[in-house]
Amino acid sequence: MHLSKLFIPVTKNLPAEAKIKSHQLMLRTGMIKQSSAGIYSWLPLGFKVMKKIEQIVREEQNFIGAQEMLMPTIQSSEIWKESGRYDDYGEEMLRIKDRQGREMLYGPTNEELITDIFRSSVKSYKSLPQLLYHIQWKFRDEIRPRFGVMRCKEFYMKDAYSFDLSDEDARKSYNKMFYSYLKTFERLGLKAIPMAADTGPIGGDLSHEFIILADTGESQIYADKDVFEIEIDKYNFDDKSLEKMRKDFTNIYAVTDDKFKEEEFNKRVKKEKQIKTKGIEVGHIFYFSDKYSKPMNCLIDDKDGKKTSVKMGSYGIGVSRLVGATIEANYNNNIMKWPKSISPFDVVIIPSISKNNKENLEKAEKIYQELKKQNIDVLLDDVEENMSNKFKKHDLIGVPYQIIVGSKSENEKYEFKEVNSKSEMLSLDKIKIKLKI
Amino acid sequence: MHLSKLFIPVTKNLPAEAKIKSHQLMLRTGMIKQSSAGIYSWLPLGFKVMKKIEQIVREEQNFIGAQEMLMPTIQSSEIWKESGRYDDYGEEMLRIKDRQGREMLYGPTNEELITDIFRSSVKSYKSLPQLLYHIQWKFRDEIRPRFGVMRCKEFYMKDAYSFDLSDEDARKSYNKMFYSYLKTFERLGLKAIPMAADTGPIGGDLSHEFIILADTGESQIYADKDVFEIEIDKYNFDDKSLEKMRKDFTNIYAVTDDKFKEEEFNKRVKKEKQIKTKGIEVGHIFYFSDKYSKPMNCLIDDKDGKKTSVKMGSYGIGVSRLVGATIEANYNNNIMKWPKSISPFDVVIIPSISKNNKENLEKAEKIYQELKKQNIDVLLDDVEENMSNKFKKHDLIGVPYQIIVGSKSENEKYEFKEVNSKSEMLSLDKIKIKLKI
Repeated sequence: MHLSKLFIPVTKNLPAEAKIKSHQLMLRTGMIKQSSAGIYSWLPLGFKVMKKIEQIVREEQNFIGAQEMLMPTIQSSEIWKESGRYDDYGEEMLRIKDRQGREMLYGPTNEELITDIFRSSVKSYKSLPQLLYHIQWKFRDEIRPRFGVMRCKEFYMKDAYSFDLSDEDARKSYNKMFYSYLKTFERLGLKAIPMAADTGPIGGDLSHEFIILADTGESQIYADKDVFEIEIDKYNFDDKSLEKMRKDFTNIYAVTDDKFKEEEFNKRVKKEKQIKTKGIEVGHIFYFSDKYSKPMNCLIDDKDGKKTSVKMGSYGIGVSRLVGATIEANYNNNIMKWPKSISPFDVVIIPSISKNNKENLEKAEKIYQELKKQNIDVLLDDVEENMSNKFKKHDLIGVPYQIIVGSKSENEKYEFKEVNSKSEMLSLDKIKIKLKI
Repeated sequence: MHLSKLFIPVTKNLPAEAKIKSHQLMLRTGMIKQSSAGIYSWLPLGFKVMKKIEQIVREEQNFIGAQEMLMPTIQSSEIWKESGRYDDYGEEMLRIKDRQGREMLYGPTNEELITDIFRSSVKSYKSLPQLLYHIQWKFRDEIRPRFGVMRCKEFYMKDAYSFDLSDEDARKSYNKMFYSYLKTFERLGLKAIPMAADTGPIGGDLSHEFIILADTGESQIYADKDVFEIEIDKYNFDDKSLEKMRKDFTNIYAVTDDKFKEEEFNKRVKKEKQIKTKGIEVGHIFYFSDKYSKPMNCLIDDKDGKKTSVKMGSYGIGVSRLVGATIEANYNNNIMKWPKSISPFDVVIIPSISKNNKENLEKAEKIYQELKKQNIDVLLDDVEENMSNKFKKHDLIGVPYQIIVGSKSENEKYEFKEVNSKSEMLSLDKIKIKLKI
């Protein structure tokens, strides 16, 4: 893509409410544009990043055997009345009356709808376990939307649901998702810590928030450094190994504000291993047993032909939120560097261009064509602008690799730079190899 | 995927309103499930087909240089008041009041929102032409939703918008989309005829509906057989060639009901070339000049620095509707055959299994693993059921190729069948080649 052709309308006058760096960066680089309070359009640059995140989430859900489907955004109020949440949910639920006066709503989540689908089709334990997920827009009518895409009204989310016959089986499904989440965040270039979360009246230990470290996070977190030392790759994808993995994680101290006790922290974690920082929640998994299946009468025949409420869990990842969260975690000292796996482009070519000299631009075009042939997704900055402005711009756009075509380029060697590292003079062949690793 | 694991909840008792064959087939094969009147969940089988259609639409939009973005589903009423359509649109628009009493709506289309985005960012003719598109859920509050996903309330649609300085430039953008649509439908395995459509008060000749032939279609169509003889591949992707292509098409007689005149038809088309049939609209492209940019004040500086309203067109393809339309076009004599490009699976393996003999199932598993290795997306019917029931089921599921593992299989040869053709005995290597073509 040539930068001059890319539809990248930057917001020049930042609105007062753009207080955190991800919100500012996304407006400044034309990734998003607000259409009304808490509702955004995703412009090409932001859209590309979000789609890449979505695809990684999808692949890791498929890997554990979850099946993708898609539930609609608009739901009937009926099923929410069955579960008892229609009244409980409060004003954050966007309630709608259709032209015939029927009470509808814009789904803020999908426990009711998936239970409704499941109860009308699956009748026997033989069809279990089952993992279903979808990636769909949801809506919460936040009274005070803020932080850009991090707390907005219309947001994109992956939510998965597990269906099992017993608590014991449900634990296996839970562990699979736990594993999937760790792998997902790792591929997104994020350090995510699973933290025991409140299970409320459900009880048990099967509720975890996945939190990434970021100074600007909303949650205060306290953890043992060891939590970063666990390597996921050492676990196999079988029930026993996954159970061990979850236990290994949960044996290490890591809590948010509400569960924090100074005394316990000091007792369990050595001073030099204590982390006190802030974090952003990017995922939440939760086992809630028959909370919905019971009132909604979602019954399964067990091995003895006895009817029993199916045991369910739900598993969310905020896909649109992750775009903002990744910026919070990676935008430092006014320089953004996208993780390679979700960068809007693999590399940017930055030629020095002047009115009277288009030689560098021509060289850049050649490199562009060459890299395109290798299926490398290249951005070519063909805008006529001085290099200092260009570099400032690319500090924000955040493509992790740059090829600078300027006075230094000679003997078919070009200045190649990984953001936040020193540049080196490399031939195009060497650059190709670097980009393909 | 093993069929026993696939979440494929079939609707056994078809509702009375499921009158057309696509609606019936989609419920019977568990592609969709109605959640409320005119609103459907897409279950794994249906979801896969829809995603494949979406991807082909996307690739052909990208090919002509259109850039993907994503506008939200919920819009503010303000911009619709500016364009004058808030009052005009009528009851099909789902109107919503948020918790603060603001008038919002679920977008039935996006001319206003894209114009709003464009006017706030693009100021100069230098940034033109521009083609932008998104693929997003839309809502029309149909009073009588029917025909399943063909006329439902919540539907998935690709809508693109072109921005040009002059009518002449706009015609070039229009031709590119015309070309993209023909290529898209060809890749979807559909015969789509572009038909001149009404331009209303806008005037001119730049409005076409793309209609595919199907007995159950809603539009009566009259055309010259020659319209199927034009090969798109003979046109180059340049302005001149594309202009010729559009003219070649529009010189051939092809109209719907409302434009039909018996006398003209008989005069222009020889008897033996006359087609009188029904069709389904699957796309619509329309040039409407400054219809929205003028009232919404979307101005561009031209070469002389004079401000002028940008010239716009819009281009829609019904992605979810295409799933139904493809079934209408391909489900004949109670046998469905998905076009290869959008089939939910590349091939299905159907072993004959009995309680006491699992030998065929074991063979089938081996073939399954072998094909998987070649990145062929295989469905293995591991359900214990007699072959006659299996074949009936697969007549509906519609995977275009079958490998039948039964009594005939010997000497490492298997019965291979393309749906609607005779079967042949082939080695696995030969089958692989057939599937990869």
